[in-house]
Amino acid sequence: MALPREFPPLSAEQVVGSTCTRLAGLGSEIRRMFLLGEERRRERPGSKLIDLSLGNPDLEPPEAVLKALIEVASEVLPGAHRYMDNAGYPEVRAFIGRSLSHTEGVLLGENNVFLTCGAAGGIQILMRVLLDPGDEVVLFAPYFSEYVPYSVNMGAKPVTVPTDDAHLPHPHALEAALTPSTRLVILNSPNNPSGVVYPRATCEALFEVLRRHRERTGRVVHVLSDEPYANLIFKPSDYVPLLPLYDALWVVRSHSKDLGLAGERIGYLAWGKALEGASTLGALRNAARSMGFVNAPALMQRLLPKVFDARVDTGVYAERVRAFCDILAAGGVSCVRPGGTFFVFPKSPVLDDRAFSQALLEKGVLVVPGSGFGKPGYVRCSLSRPLEEVKEAANIYVLAYKAMQKEADKLF
Amino acid sequence: MALPREFPPLSAEQVVGSTCTRLAGLGSEIRRMFLLGEERRRERPGSKLIDLSLGNPDLEPPEAVLKALIEVASEVLPGAHRYMDNAGYPEVRAFIGRSLSHTEGVLLGENNVFLTCGAAGGIQILMRVLLDPGDEVVLFAPYFSEYVPYSVNMGAKPVTVPTDDAHLPHPHALEAALTPSTRLVILNSPNNPSGVVYPRATCEALFEVLRRHRERTGRVVHVLSDEPYANLIFKPSDYVPLLPLYDALWVVRSHSKDLGLAGERIGYLAWGKALEGASTLGALRNAARSMGFVNAPALMQRLLPKVFDARVDTGVYAERVRAFCDILAAGGVSCVRPGGTFFVFPKSPVLDDRAFSQALLEKGVLVVPGSGFGKPGYVRCSLSRPLEEVKEAANIYVLAYKAMQKEADKLF
Repeated sequence: MALPREFPPLSAEQVVGSTCTRLAGLGSEIRRMFLLGEERRRERPGSKLIDLSLGNPDLEPPEAVLKALIEVASEVLPGAHRYMDNAGYPEVRAFIGRSLSHTEGVLLGENNVFLTCGAAGGIQILMRVLLDPGDEVVLFAPYFSEYVPYSVNMGAKPVTVPTDDAHLPHPHALEAALTPSTRLVILNSPNNPSGVVYPRATCEALFEVLRRHRERTGRVVHVLSDEPYANLIFKPSDYVPLLPLYDALWVVRSHSKDLGLAGERIGYLAWGKALEGASTLGALRNAARSMGFVNAPALMQRLLPKVFDARVDTGVYAERVRAFCDILAAGGVSCVRPGGTFFVFPKSPVLDDRAFSQALLEKGVLVVPGSGFGKPGYVRCSLSRPLEEVKEAANIYVLAYKAMQKEADKLF
Repeated sequence: MALPREFPPLSAEQVVGSTCTRLAGLGSEIRRMFLLGEERRRERPGSKLIDLSLGNPDLEPPEAVLKALIEVASEVLPGAHRYMDNAGYPEVRAFIGRSLSHTEGVLLGENNVFLTCGAAGGIQILMRVLLDPGDEVVLFAPYFSEYVPYSVNMGAKPVTVPTDDAHLPHPHALEAALTPSTRLVILNSPNNPSGVVYPRATCEALFEVLRRHRERTGRVVHVLSDEPYANLIFKPSDYVPLLPLYDALWVVRSHSKDLGLAGERIGYLAWGKALEGASTLGALRNAARSMGFVNAPALMQRLLPKVFDARVDTGVYAERVRAFCDILAAGGVSCVRPGGTFFVFPKSPVLDDRAFSQALLEKGVLVVPGSGFGKPGYVRCSLSRPLEEVKEAANIYVLAYKAMQKEADKLF
């Protein structure tokens, strides 16, 4: 049998399945802008580009986290790097449960917490537990774009529900979107891309719609509260703990942003008493195994209890957001002031947010069109750059906005 | 709106979808034995139980690994814990590519390596790239039981192909199993659960079948070589590098076993030149994002180049395997001698391997029935216990085997 020393190349069609190709086409707006940015960097190597496109926070982990990391890495514990319960170390889960009991207003213990490979891993294993093909997942636009491929990956159907000018969801809009196939509603507050924190009344009104839907139809709609920015709220009292407000509620948290550990993949799911007996832990374990997650990284699990109250300096983000919004406001650009995160989601001068993003790129600022988050006519600015660059970008924004507005006005 | 202070419990039917319930029923043999073991520990708290059920290796990471872990945790590098390319750090991928070039016999670089959350994560993202619903995945029994839920999670169909008494696959058996829907064949050598290392001739014959199938039908069948035990081969020259032998070949590795880092979730995918141009990196990035993996843990990525040649002491496993097989052979129990791993897959005295496993449990040894790995009439013994316990278990095995054989003989 003769063996070729070098094989001729296979084609993309021979390798990539149609499901993966479909996934690749979803939520690709950030990637598209990234590539446009790369192109510009190549074509104009000297020219400045302020990159506000990626949600990769620039603050380093707090000193306490770096110190604790060396501590856990230095611990000599037999079995410390072996497999453990797919749900995570029981003592870490118990610690997180106890800590959350203070902030969430419900009593949580080790059977209410599942450690995950970041919030993304948590969302996917929860979806694996809840969703069957054809189920509908309600997303309030603007939404974190990855919710779309996450849903499609389960064979589920994302359903977009619009929000108002303040980027807040309304109960009647949710009600209109509910069908017999609705299985999950995702809330994301503080919100990526808008930075908006949903007030308590908004959440309560949404839950009331779901309760009435259940009474009418007998169908339980679950709610996933995706909270990677919960500790990046500028006024901490704005935080609304949702577990006491609805029974079929799942909280997912990550320490990618508040501890600056995005690359380390550590987060967790938490749920209240009503979900405790429903084979929940077992089902999540099966999902984590079947999807190949197995368990959250052992070392990061052991780190968490040591640094649970540590935070990156939210003031840095708050200052950038304030400065950016001040310049926009002074320039007459409409922008909802974020209550947290490092994102701002101002108006585009024209509905065609891709055209405006292109114009901004030509002036040296890279943003992501709101279309990528289900809400055209806006752009997302990720203020993960130093204050001076943020201010410079805001000034460029105002100029580009006015120029394009003038152009648009001419057409009428 | 009155809010209940405590919600009544939801039922499992209101929480767990039918897909997850189906996944939970797959590959549950190990879990079933684990629960039987727990039950026995509760019921007879004093009595000894030698647990050979779990594939959780008991050897600690080598000293060099523990030392390097402290080093990388202590490094002060800006951005060291942030998101990076979904494929992993380019310099780590380049390092792994260079290192594999020596052992695999093909030239690999950073565009031939994708870092993953363990081998499990690697298998799932590769399946997400390759598989569409209805595609068939060929497994040679005995197979690692998780391949079944991994395939079903993609909507694909696992197809079991039997092996011979030496647990080796045969080309005609593969040929008989191929259909127009066959998309992927999984090879796992050294094998879990049998410990058998597939010889070169076996692999070449299988590839030849796939090449003829392609010539006849135009359809490319991919091969995944799952190699978490590649560095736990007792005679290293037994290792057969497969990349030079077939074009549509993917290698997946993990450091769960050879570095004792199972809980830390670090592994990688590697592929040759023929797959390089086929949008491969991009498709894998999309899969890793869509499935919520995002990237392999940053710290463990940075650890790898520092410890790439470190190994747990394979001699420890080899000695246990030898001792166990010697005692079985002396007792007249048929058992293929493993060429690697810490697994042994001896004959059950009766086809009903669950009955024999139950009998062994009653005598104080916990194993997993071969039925859980697609090959009834055998049991898997995971020798992740000290040598003395392994010997004790082997002696109990022989006694239980003979007792049940005697019982079975009486029936005829």
